[in-house]
Amino acid sequence: MASNDKANRPKARMAKGFRDVGTEEIRGLRAMLNKIQEVYELYGFEPVEQPFIEYTDALGKFLPDLDRPNEGVFSFQDDDDQWLSLRYDLTAPLARYVAENQQFLPTPFRSYRQGWVFRNEKPGPGRYRQFMQFDADTVGSASPAADAEVCMMAADTMEALGIARGTYVVKINSRKILDGFQEAQGIGPDVKMTWLRALDKLDRLGEKGVALLLGAGRADESGDFTKGAGLTDKQIEASVSFSTSMALSLKHVEGSRVGEEGVCDLEMMESLCRSAGHGADRIRYDASVVRGLEYYTGPVFECELLMDAKDEKGNTVRFGSVGGGGRYDDLVSRFVGQAVPATGFSIGVSRLYSALELLGQTQKAETLAPVVVLVMDKERQGDYQRMVHVLRRAGIRAEMYVGTSAMKAQMKYADKRGSPLVVIQGSDEKARGEVTLKDLALGAEQARGVESREEYASQRLAQVSVPEAELVAQVRKLLTRGR
Amino acid sequence: MASNDKANRPKARMAKGFRDVGTEEIRGLRAMLNKIQEVYELYGFEPVEQPFIEYTDALGKFLPDLDRPNEGVFSFQDDDDQWLSLRYDLTAPLARYVAENQQFLPTPFRSYRQGWVFRNEKPGPGRYRQFMQFDADTVGSASPAADAEVCMMAADTMEALGIARGTYVVKINSRKILDGFQEAQGIGPDVKMTWLRALDKLDRLGEKGVALLLGAGRADESGDFTKGAGLTDKQIEASVSFSTSMALSLKHVEGSRVGEEGVCDLEMMESLCRSAGHGADRIRYDASVVRGLEYYTGPVFECELLMDAKDEKGNTVRFGSVGGGGRYDDLVSRFVGQAVPATGFSIGVSRLYSALELLGQTQKAETLAPVVVLVMDKERQGDYQRMVHVLRRAGIRAEMYVGTSAMKAQMKYADKRGSPLVVIQGSDEKARGEVTLKDLALGAEQARGVESREEYASQRLAQVSVPEAELVAQVRKLLTRGR
Repeated sequence: MASNDKANRPKARMAKGFRDVGTEEIRGLRAMLNKIQEVYELYGFEPVEQPFIEYTDALGKFLPDLDRPNEGVFSFQDDDDQWLSLRYDLTAPLARYVAENQQFLPTPFRSYRQGWVFRNEKPGPGRYRQFMQFDADTVGSASPAADAEVCMMAADTMEALGIARGTYVVKINSRKILDGFQEAQGIGPDVKMTWLRALDKLDRLGEKGVALLLGAGRADESGDFTKGAGLTDKQIEASVSFSTSMALSLKHVEGSRVGEEGVCDLEMMESLCRSAGHGADRIRYDASVVRGLEYYTGPVFECELLMDAKDEKGNTVRFGSVGGGGRYDDLVSRFVGQAVPATGFSIGVSRLYSALELLGQTQKAETLAPVVVLVMDKERQGDYQRMVHVLRRAGIRAEMYVGTSAMKAQMKYADKRGSPLVVIQGSDEKARGEVTLKDLALGAEQARGVESREEYASQRLAQVSVPEAELVAQVRKLLTRGR
Repeated sequence: MASNDKANRPKARMAKGFRDVGTEEIRGLRAMLNKIQEVYELYGFEPVEQPFIEYTDALGKFLPDLDRPNEGVFSFQDDDDQWLSLRYDLTAPLARYVAENQQFLPTPFRSYRQGWVFRNEKPGPGRYRQFMQFDADTVGSASPAADAEVCMMAADTMEALGIARGTYVVKINSRKILDGFQEAQGIGPDVKMTWLRALDKLDRLGEKGVALLLGAGRADESGDFTKGAGLTDKQIEASVSFSTSMALSLKHVEGSRVGEEGVCDLEMMESLCRSAGHGADRIRYDASVVRGLEYYTGPVFECELLMDAKDEKGNTVRFGSVGGGGRYDDLVSRFVGQAVPATGFSIGVSRLYSALELLGQTQKAETLAPVVVLVMDKERQGDYQRMVHVLRRAGIRAEMYVGTSAMKAQMKYADKRGSPLVVIQGSDEKARGEVTLKDLALGAEQARGVESREEYASQRLAQVSVPEAELVAQVRKLLTRGR
């Protein structure tokens, strides 16, 4: 089948917006996921997983007036014409699961899940169409205690990953406080979303820019004009002052029942957090948190990294959000037609991992590359394979060179693999009942340190001949040297 | 949004052919995947992963004469009208990866990967449209040493998972031997596939049934007639004798160069395996292995479990294949137009896990359910949360009951969670500076063992009041009792 007819060959190219994951990242991710898992387990959450594919209507991404499912989702029709979608987060499938299995589950139901999710969106730098999330959810409790728990868990997770206290914060706010403020200020439902979107830009546009968006509108640098919410000066002033005030207070929502509820919820969350040793340096109210507008019904959370770091190009990067969540009381309810309150927190694993990488906080691979046993004589592969077997039985990562090239290419292979050492047994060694162990790490070090005329000698220093019977012991000795 | 209008509610139902994965299975799978990974690592393979979605033509599932991608694959069109597919195995994406990155990779390139794959097929009992594979591949070596390695690795993996020697076998055969036999017997290319399919049914139909399929044809019990290959009696006799002979021998392929190559490959594989302590009880030639006919170009492997087990209904079940692989020299070549030999082994993780479950060989969860701190007084949730915090800091899985129900429902919750013990502090205990620890496991045991009139007393035995300051020490004592 191997064809030289280039025109008929498929092109080997990755699909747009996707990426391969290399060895180092997989090992780093594995260590990171294990740590997150340990914290979630300690908090008493249990793993339960849903499939990658759900009926589109169960994900809530099918609008009745559309032929095709909503944007942003990978969808396809099944043989029976029903629409299926790849999960775009882990919460929607969980809601389906709980609604379908409610009678078998404890109440509240505390579970966690981790995995890849998919977005059918335009990819950009660092923005992929497949990424990983790690969620924990409590379904069946309306208590702010459930919200407080997931926030504390998020904070503990950051520290378990080596992110120092003071360099991250879990900000909390409540959809009810935002609604309550609007009610108290007489901001009508028609400009509600414009208002929220404007406040969400405080970080980027500053108070002045936001004031314009809340009022008459704003032209950006390119000249594009965004229509404003048309609020009164008094409403604008109150909005900006509300949004920049970091004090949780009833005065912003005076007279709004829902707003007062929101404040009480957060007060209780803060009180529970403080009781369990989670101070305002870790979890605190922040009126500027405006996320998942359509989705959340009560408290909302956002976990932010506060330190700056340099990216590959040396630019200063502020990480910002690495996870978030909130209360979503309607997601299960929409299936079962009765109240099923729920809250949860989702870590953006891929995003958090990038942050840890920039910080140099990813766990370095403890796995050593394998020892390579060279094939000096093709007729004697059985002997080399036996050496490998002996090493493996002793728990030492090892492989016989299974390619077909000669000595020089084999050494190059071992180098490229990052092997700590190679095992050599040519006919001379065989005759003496010995093997030669060549320490590649030491050899490279020495080669750097000496003049080129001495190189040969230095290479000799990095190798040693030992009796074959001592293979395991001598390899182990070299592998543990200096570690 | 919670609507009581039943007609407008979406139905909470899992998509056809998919399934949720529960806590116990996730923990069991995790342990199993870790063990497989350890063996693969020991053999010197490195993890590298590809995305879930690839261009359909890169997966090789796009036939030029079809509007839609080939059957059996979930596919959908991207915004730019290109077809994308969900991976149906882990090998096709690997081939794309190697072809795209060849210049950066060591040769041979040894890698492993694990993950979910998807088949757009009709689901059946135990047959899902999403399942997990764990693959290891060596790309860039034509040597039978590479084939021998993955077979030894498969055998070692079985034993690492607790499958005793003698109860599994890695059967090897070669596509070249099959081709060579046909050539030697003068079996024409027109009946090649019929011939292979007939031999593949030896297990099920026996020699007589296969002989019919090789000759005039065969009617099954329902009367359905399958056309035969129309071979001569001599060819049929030779075919059956070849397929049931377990001796690797040149005599079956006499005069066929490709057949002789096939025999030499397997002889070398067997010799290397024997050198490394893998005897015929673990890895052996079996002429009846006929898998992946279109796909493989040289040696093929099949790992079978040999023991019987009872399924849930008490029926005897033969597990059969839990993995397989072989040499696929054309898969990377088709992209790059030059020879890139490759071989690999894929474990059917979901299938193997089912087998281990039936055998009672899955690793039992070592994770204890969390200690539950009851909420006896809503005003004192801060105190209870503090106790939970103290327990967690000591590494003990714990949670405060975060629901809103009263004492009885809280106990029921703890029971349903399988909690080993609950922590209780009502006003009496609080006044004495104590907490009550109720051992649910011991309580249940005792309640079973005694008459009902003594039950109250037995329940008392299973609980103890201790100073609050000793909370951690006393909880730990109870948790480790008898373990």
